[in-house]
Amino acid sequence: MDFSYITDNQKRFIDELTEFLRIPSISTLPEYKESVQQAAEWTASRLQYAGIENVKVMETNGHPIVYGDWLHAEGAPTVLFYGHYDVQPAEPLDLWNSQPFEPVIENERIYARGATDMKANVLLPVIACETWLKDAKTLPVNVKFLFEGEEEIGSPSLAGFMEENKDMLRADTAISADSGRIEEEKPASMVSLRGLAGVQIDVRSARGDLHSGLYGGAVPNSAQALARILDSLKHEDGTVAVEGFYDDVVERRDEEKETINATFSSNDTFQQNAGVDRVYGEPGYTPGEQTLIRPTLDINGLWGGYQGIGVKTVIPAESHAKVTCRLVPDQNPEQIIDLIRQHVERHTPEEVEAFVIPLEGKAYPYMLPETHPGLKAVEEAVQHVEEKTPAQLRIGGSIPITGLLQQLLDVHTIQLGYSVFDEGMHAPNEFYRISQFEKGQKVYTRLLKELEAYLG
Amino acid sequence: MDFSYITDNQKRFIDELTEFLRIPSISTLPEYKESVQQAAEWTASRLQYAGIENVKVMETNGHPIVYGDWLHAEGAPTVLFYGHYDVQPAEPLDLWNSQPFEPVIENERIYARGATDMKANVLLPVIACETWLKDAKTLPVNVKFLFEGEEEIGSPSLAGFMEENKDMLRADTAISADSGRIEEEKPASMVSLRGLAGVQIDVRSARGDLHSGLYGGAVPNSAQALARILDSLKHEDGTVAVEGFYDDVVERRDEEKETINATFSSNDTFQQNAGVDRVYGEPGYTPGEQTLIRPTLDINGLWGGYQGIGVKTVIPAESHAKVTCRLVPDQNPEQIIDLIRQHVERHTPEEVEAFVIPLEGKAYPYMLPETHPGLKAVEEAVQHVEEKTPAQLRIGGSIPITGLLQQLLDVHTIQLGYSVFDEGMHAPNEFYRISQFEKGQKVYTRLLKELEAYLG
Repeated sequence: MDFSYITDNQKRFIDELTEFLRIPSISTLPEYKESVQQAAEWTASRLQYAGIENVKVMETNGHPIVYGDWLHAEGAPTVLFYGHYDVQPAEPLDLWNSQPFEPVIENERIYARGATDMKANVLLPVIACETWLKDAKTLPVNVKFLFEGEEEIGSPSLAGFMEENKDMLRADTAISADSGRIEEEKPASMVSLRGLAGVQIDVRSARGDLHSGLYGGAVPNSAQALARILDSLKHEDGTVAVEGFYDDVVERRDEEKETINATFSSNDTFQQNAGVDRVYGEPGYTPGEQTLIRPTLDINGLWGGYQGIGVKTVIPAESHAKVTCRLVPDQNPEQIIDLIRQHVERHTPEEVEAFVIPLEGKAYPYMLPETHPGLKAVEEAVQHVEEKTPAQLRIGGSIPITGLLQQLLDVHTIQLGYSVFDEGMHAPNEFYRISQFEKGQKVYTRLLKELEAYLG
Repeated sequence: MDFSYITDNQKRFIDELTEFLRIPSISTLPEYKESVQQAAEWTASRLQYAGIENVKVMETNGHPIVYGDWLHAEGAPTVLFYGHYDVQPAEPLDLWNSQPFEPVIENERIYARGATDMKANVLLPVIACETWLKDAKTLPVNVKFLFEGEEEIGSPSLAGFMEENKDMLRADTAISADSGRIEEEKPASMVSLRGLAGVQIDVRSARGDLHSGLYGGAVPNSAQALARILDSLKHEDGTVAVEGFYDDVVERRDEEKETINATFSSNDTFQQNAGVDRVYGEPGYTPGEQTLIRPTLDINGLWGGYQGIGVKTVIPAESHAKVTCRLVPDQNPEQIIDLIRQHVERHTPEEVEAFVIPLEGKAYPYMLPETHPGLKAVEEAVQHVEEKTPAQLRIGGSIPITGLLQQLLDVHTIQLGYSVFDEGMHAPNEFYRISQFEKGQKVYTRLLKELEAYLG
């Protein structure tokens, strides 16, 4: 199949993207609830126009989920496309050069909130299916679409929806276009993400704050006890001291480490970017390994007692800390929280009480197996269109969807998006490159064919 | 001398106290600067009326200091009376049952800001001198008055003033009426106070906050380092771990400990008052000893990074803590700050920087020697008027003036005030007992005579 349908319809596709971007589908702000609904309906119509069947706007406790499928490729594999039609708030508005929901095209870039995260990317698999269905009247694989409206608020309804609709969502592999590359000319697919698990630690030493002139010397101090607990969480060398923390960590292959170290910034550049005088982390690993494929634990905040100017001789009755861990396969966020809880219990001074409260925002770590046939499919499709081999990108951050798809639907996710990481995601003047839009449509169109070949 | 002059003039004394209390001499609020000046001038006039000579309102960098003397008791000892004419702000105003600067007398109590802290007490030595000078036309001892207007803001100008006016202030003993008793019917003089020294510890791990998805695992964390430093400050058993901290501590005599333990609340009562499940402090000492005659160290506050709702995966670049120590003789606040600084230097993880900044509000610990003849004079004067032996009160809090007088003028301070500790010092509806006012005047009048006998 050539790409003439894509070339011929490119102007319309851009007009459609513009229309999609005009809908202020800000999921976190209640006053935009109708706009979010409108974006869901727009997405559903767009799927129908492409020839997708069984399209539904399905209610959840929050914003709706859009589903659709085309299942006539008998004997061929089934691919589940994931995406989200919601966007971040546009604030601070005064830093935008144009209106965030009145898209402007300038220098081959389209500026609008949601341009790169991820309304343009949402359209890539839709246009790819349309191209097949209009041109060839068929698809090489079976496809399902799962587009949610709550990604920017942590996908609170998604897991429940997936649990309830396991049969409907069953697939051989998932594909997410909520991804991108570091440089425009360097195609990449994301193959590794760290997970996330966090707790708040609350320490209580008395019914209320006490005056150190009256009580100092004979009563416990919540801040002192918190310091002891927090200090116990890590060893001096930077390793995590929570008992059992590393038990399920899969040591990565030397080849993977070599790949990471060959492409990761030098120690000097890393230090400069981080604004630190020295790198500091788990011995035996490079900063690239430490931040991409090794787990860690960080105190994100702590507070208690008096924080103002000068002296207040108070013995704080309560002190608090927030702690999160970045996780790697096969660590399990729930289990890590349990291990922290047990560790805190063991290390709480007996003169105080400590409470460990799990934080929202868990994410499973994710690693696409190097042998996953989808990787080869991506490689072929990208090579065909871009004439370059896509890099395998590992990132140290967390995206819950990949782990969720694996845990709940037992499918691996291929992450291939056409954003570039300099496009102001979540920031003012967010944009998307028009050239990437068309490139992405072609690669996705080709990818359907390659998936048939490699997953078949 | 009988007390007929005091009895005859009691109505006037109460009117004068009322007048004094009407002046809103709030030292911490710039908009009350003139009122503070007015209170200084009122105090000076009152001294003059009493027959005190060389009365001066002396300028400082802050609020003025009122000085006066009467030095015609040849061969007799010289006594320096210390007091302060400034008061705390009256907020929260809505909790007052009357206007804080419109004194109300009800049930033999006078209600106003400054009533118990310490305008009524300021008048005690003034009225005592007046009584002698009007009645006997002489005083049994030489007297000097030092009344400051900055006690409620930590006496920032006082040390400099005392350094510059050492000759003028030279005396055999100092007497402060800025004191009181726990129960109305139990007279007491304060013989032991703890000192105070504090620092802020600032830890920096990077130029700015970092995202744990990008950097977590390869960079230091200021909060983690702060926890290590803070944990190192104390041993598990509650003793202070700062090297050299206990070196200058004078172990108190068994008799003093017995006195303390005989009068201190039971462990049960102490725990109940403190709202703690158990007492916790330096082994080998009772809570009474721990809070009154043993030094301690407390974290008063700590903060860094994210303190809001939910998760923010930040690696805080800066974290902070405030730490104060209660000190006992012969610990020196400056030296304790140095020891903490050295300790923090030794215990700062090498991957971060830590800064130790001394806090304002230092106080030397204070202990009146048991053999000080002024104690006997107080005992006789109180016995004469109240027909009770005054207790020797040890408190765990800090009052800078006693240490300052000892360090700078080499005089011990006898602390005898007629406040009762339930009179709402620094709180709404502050009051003073009218009966205590007259009692105090009589005891102070008698005290002048006893001081001649015992100090002579």
